[in-house]
Amino acid sequence: MSHDSVSAGADREGSDSSGQESTLADHEAQLNAVLADVEGSSADDEPISLELPGLGMNRRDFMKAGAAVGTVSALAGCASLTGGGTNTQTTSGDVPDHTVAPGEHDEYYGFWSGGHAGDIRIFGLPSMRELTRIPVFNREPAKGYGFDDETNAMLEDAGGYTWGDSHHPSLSETDGKYDGNYLFVNDKANGRVARVNLKYFETDAITNVPNVQAVHGCCIQSPNTDYLFANSEFRTPLPNDGRDVTNPEKYVSVFTAIDPESMAVRWQVQVDGNLDILDTDKDGRWAISSAYNDEEGVEIEEMTRDDRDYVKAFDVPAIQTAVDNGEYEEVNGVPVVDGRRDSLLNSGENPIVRYIPTPKSPHCVEVEPNGKYAMVAGKLSPTVSIIDIEKLASEPDPAKTIVGQPKVGLGPLHTTFDDRGQAYTSLFIDSQVVKWDIETAVDSPDNSEDAILGKIDVHYNPGHIQAIQAMSTEPIGDWLVVLNKLSKDRFLPVGPIYPDNDQLIYIGNDKDDETGGMELVADHPVYPEPHDAIFATKDKIAPAKTWDKADYEGEKEYVSETNSRVNRIDDTTVEAYASVKRSEYGLRDFTVKEGDQVTLTVTNIEGSQDIVHGVAIPEYDVNLALAPQDTREVTFRADKPGVYWIYCTYFCSALHLEMRSRMLVEPR
Amino acid sequence: MSHDSVSAGADREGSDSSGQESTLADHEAQLNAVLADVEGSSADDEPISLELPGLGMNRRDFMKAGAAVGTVSALAGCASLTGGGTNTQTTSGDVPDHTVAPGEHDEYYGFWSGGHAGDIRIFGLPSMRELTRIPVFNREPAKGYGFDDETNAMLEDAGGYTWGDSHHPSLSETDGKYDGNYLFVNDKANGRVARVNLKYFETDAITNVPNVQAVHGCCIQSPNTDYLFANSEFRTPLPNDGRDVTNPEKYVSVFTAIDPESMAVRWQVQVDGNLDILDTDKDGRWAISSAYNDEEGVEIEEMTRDDRDYVKAFDVPAIQTAVDNGEYEEVNGVPVVDGRRDSLLNSGENPIVRYIPTPKSPHCVEVEPNGKYAMVAGKLSPTVSIIDIEKLASEPDPAKTIVGQPKVGLGPLHTTFDDRGQAYTSLFIDSQVVKWDIETAVDSPDNSEDAILGKIDVHYNPGHIQAIQAMSTEPIGDWLVVLNKLSKDRFLPVGPIYPDNDQLIYIGNDKDDETGGMELVADHPVYPEPHDAIFATKDKIAPAKTWDKADYEGEKEYVSETNSRVNRIDDTTVEAYASVKRSEYGLRDFTVKEGDQVTLTVTNIEGSQDIVHGVAIPEYDVNLALAPQDTREVTFRADKPGVYWIYCTYFCSALHLEMRSRMLVEPR
Repeated sequence: MSHDSVSAGADREGSDSSGQESTLADHEAQLNAVLADVEGSSADDEPISLELPGLGMNRRDFMKAGAAVGTVSALAGCASLTGGGTNTQTTSGDVPDHTVAPGEHDEYYGFWSGGHAGDIRIFGLPSMRELTRIPVFNREPAKGYGFDDETNAMLEDAGGYTWGDSHHPSLSETDGKYDGNYLFVNDKANGRVARVNLKYFETDAITNVPNVQAVHGCCIQSPNTDYLFANSEFRTPLPNDGRDVTNPEKYVSVFTAIDPESMAVRWQVQVDGNLDILDTDKDGRWAISSAYNDEEGVEIEEMTRDDRDYVKAFDVPAIQTAVDNGEYEEVNGVPVVDGRRDSLLNSGENPIVRYIPTPKSPHCVEVEPNGKYAMVAGKLSPTVSIIDIEKLASEPDPAKTIVGQPKVGLGPLHTTFDDRGQAYTSLFIDSQVVKWDIETAVDSPDNSEDAILGKIDVHYNPGHIQAIQAMSTEPIGDWLVVLNKLSKDRFLPVGPIYPDNDQLIYIGNDKDDETGGMELVADHPVYPEPHDAIFATKDKIAPAKTWDKADYEGEKEYVSETNSRVNRIDDTTVEAYASVKRSEYGLRDFTVKEGDQVTLTVTNIEGSQDIVHGVAIPEYDVNLALAPQDTREVTFRADKPGVYWIYCTYFCSALHLEMRSRMLVEPR
Repeated sequence: MSHDSVSAGADREGSDSSGQESTLADHEAQLNAVLADVEGSSADDEPISLELPGLGMNRRDFMKAGAAVGTVSALAGCASLTGGGTNTQTTSGDVPDHTVAPGEHDEYYGFWSGGHAGDIRIFGLPSMRELTRIPVFNREPAKGYGFDDETNAMLEDAGGYTWGDSHHPSLSETDGKYDGNYLFVNDKANGRVARVNLKYFETDAITNVPNVQAVHGCCIQSPNTDYLFANSEFRTPLPNDGRDVTNPEKYVSVFTAIDPESMAVRWQVQVDGNLDILDTDKDGRWAISSAYNDEEGVEIEEMTRDDRDYVKAFDVPAIQTAVDNGEYEEVNGVPVVDGRRDSLLNSGENPIVRYIPTPKSPHCVEVEPNGKYAMVAGKLSPTVSIIDIEKLASEPDPAKTIVGQPKVGLGPLHTTFDDRGQAYTSLFIDSQVVKWDIETAVDSPDNSEDAILGKIDVHYNPGHIQAIQAMSTEPIGDWLVVLNKLSKDRFLPVGPIYPDNDQLIYIGNDKDDETGGMELVADHPVYPEPHDAIFATKDKIAPAKTWDKADYEGEKEYVSETNSRVNRIDDTTVEAYASVKRSEYGLRDFTVKEGDQVTLTVTNIEGSQDIVHGVAIPEYDVNLALAPQDTREVTFRADKPGVYWIYCTYFCSALHLEMRSRMLVEPR
């Protein structure tokens, strides 16, 4: 193993090998230069079309042509740019049609995390049409999520926050294959994880994880979803209750294991540094997490001071044994095991957490479909570090678990996979995707480009990248989506907050050309700010078309037309029950008194798919959405006297407009 | 004028000409039969694929084949089905490509109302890609809307509701052409109207209209946006403060005129019946509104009892004169003019509101681009009534202002227009679009099908329908979008709440075939539940790419790096000011005391387009989104001691993850 890239990174940062702190001014200069020149985003408003004086070419082409290679390599600490791809605007004849004719279905489901929109978005692939959205951490009126008593209570019990920052969707697996039961996702903003029930495509549980701030990495344990794992990214005092606020050396971050059925937190492991993103092996032993700031600084110069950081490989059975043996401290009701590098538990023959040195501030870990290797993208290093998972248990020197380190390009962030042993890594700074061969990379010297098969330009600054079923043992290898963070000039302007650009690339053809056969097929503007995505073949997902009332029997009443009624419980409490079907609520009207607490229970008694009804009470902020056979309850205070016409928000029949109930609120 | 359709309608409802009330059982039987058989939505779960015993064809084809025409005509009160179209799945060679290659731009902007999602959605046409969404009545975290002090105060001042039901987007005009300044939209749920500033694609004003419940129709006054008009659909006591709740005869609905610059309510007009949808002429005199329930009943049987209802044509200058003359009652600070049919003001030579009889419960009014005719779709009648706008001023008999009444099909709801004198009407029950010639319809006998040029199947149950710039004086006549309320089997299943289906139809080719040349090009699933849309050529809209700080100077401070600071105002009040740019907040950390009220003001000092930054404070529900040069403020109570890492929600640079500020909340 050489560590040229690490050294180069140190040079770039202006710090010497003793780890001396670089100054903010150094960082500013470096960042401004990299971001302005390499990304093409200067203070000029039109970076992409900007022509450099006397050159007759724009800044991007100028960079590609290599005229500024000296600058780039000096700034970014790597050798010359190779490949470079063309801005492929049209596809060759052997790319399948990505459009889907009217009435035909897509081949794949795509589940996007919505970022700080707080939701999950479902797309069909390859058409890239949004099929629906699932509100998770955001209250969302179209589906009445957060408006009925049950979903409102779930959100209130999980902290009462009105938003979240969903990053990493993870599909439940059985035998390493997506089983269509659940999708899990993190909330970075508020340290939570949520579960989406894929029978109803609805969020059914949110856990506010104790002892953490900013859950970032989040994934299920392959192959059988025995745990849901969650990383806390931000280091804080443990517990974070006002103690040690000015003592950063007391801050910690933790790795959390959650029961995917009860969604209860089982145990946590305290580690050094800031945890980032994680993935698991395919055998149920290792959870492997990227991390940064092993310096444990609190400012950016401190966080990026040293040449290396440490990937954390969590030995799940060993941790479980420690928990069973009582080797933990209980904090806020959770067993917290000490997995810091210098801890007693971590110093023996079988450490519970292995610390694997990589170039500093790597970004992501993805385990390839065979489960043999974990890929650690370098971010500030132009490399991907390849961890041989088998060696995690057998190799005494953690550094030697890294068996390859191809040089891929500037700003590698995420890697995905096809079914042919090939990897695809997003290059944030280069605005490219690089295709490379995994076994060639393992067999080649570190920092070589031998494994590179091609590069393609993307637009612009890609983050996550995902191919069909690449996170499971069943990759497909036809389509790949690149989630670009900037779109700049790619779409009609829509004001100063731009859409991102999810680009569809066909990877089904391996060719000996500039791009290795990758072809850019379509640009798709997306609402801010999708973070990651995961894709499944359509046969894996089988949602219900109507509700099965057995799923809520005993908790909520199924209100038929004949038991629609109003019950006055006491002087200030009323319960109203109504059925709803096309053109008619079971209650034509009902009367309450000013100040009453009213609980309204409504059942959609339709048996037909797609016949959804709503319950809107004007000026009362009441808004239910009821799929066929579903029942929802809402409780509110009737504090405004007057006449309130309850109406249906889903256009449901030719007499939809005349369909009404009427709440009469009599003054006290 | 004959009124066959009205009589037929009466027969269908089972009421005689004396207006005797039909029973609920009659209605149920009729509705169930119409909806189950004609829409193909029976209690069976798979209505579309259902085969009728022994026929070897599905229900829909069965209906098309005319085998059940007797049933249909008996149920729906019209003659045989004509045309019928085919389920066009592929387009002929002379339809332009609707896809847009990577990096190329769409030709048109589309502004969709999001229905009870509460937002406006911007699509590019013809690609039908969603470019962005503008939260209006919904608090939305991705854009931080409702999270900063200013937008939060706007929503609180407008009633504090957490949702709205946006129906009818209307673009501001100058000289009858879209001027790109504003988009207006109603909130049916809470009786409000909102304005979107198209410089920033952001909602900048919401008016909670007094004296109304459920603003439904909403449009600007052509040709120069002198007023924004809003219809209240639901009849309530005036004011609705607890008086007269059990006296429906005292309920009223009102038509409202709003100043589009100040967004202040100028005057209202009280009328008979429930107002529905409106449009204006092109000369600034008439606002023409559909209406139902002139019976002024409170239940569906009463509302649909009589054979006819009355379109209301508001004579805006005459109303203005009445207001100027003090001929009004002031209610909640608004002059309310009496425009009821039997009122004194409405009985003279120049009535302020003309009541035009149509078949009962018409749905929509659209004025065609030349401004000559207003089209009133029949809904429960299979006709469109054509009002000659010139006759509104000159014709003494209001009934005679209707100069044509073509029979178009079952459930006509909305009409749009091309640039060649042709109209396109959505048929909700038939699940079709019918194309017809306007002048032929005027010249033909009422209830004739002479003007019909073709029909095309859509999927399923279309509501609004819109062609490019059809609401202005500059129609284009190439693409048409049909907003179908049901999608059923058209997309991969996504749980029991289905997407709607917006279908793209090419109308640029006039042909003498079954569809009149209309060709179905693409299906697009859409999140519930778009209601209407309006389209403009791309040259009409010119949003800013960054903020102009002159637009908020004097209201908010522009915080530069050098004036980032923390000011303690008193023992419990802190003001913090921070700049933000790639990788750095102007404040690396700041300390407050538990219980402090903190106001944080942040400026994004970037000059480059598309470089947006966020400000998230974990567990404090703080979430700002800052476009370049924008400043936002947020005020919160620091009620939880501990360390809180402020982070950026928009992925902005290679060091985005390390970019942080830190709020230390010291215990008191």
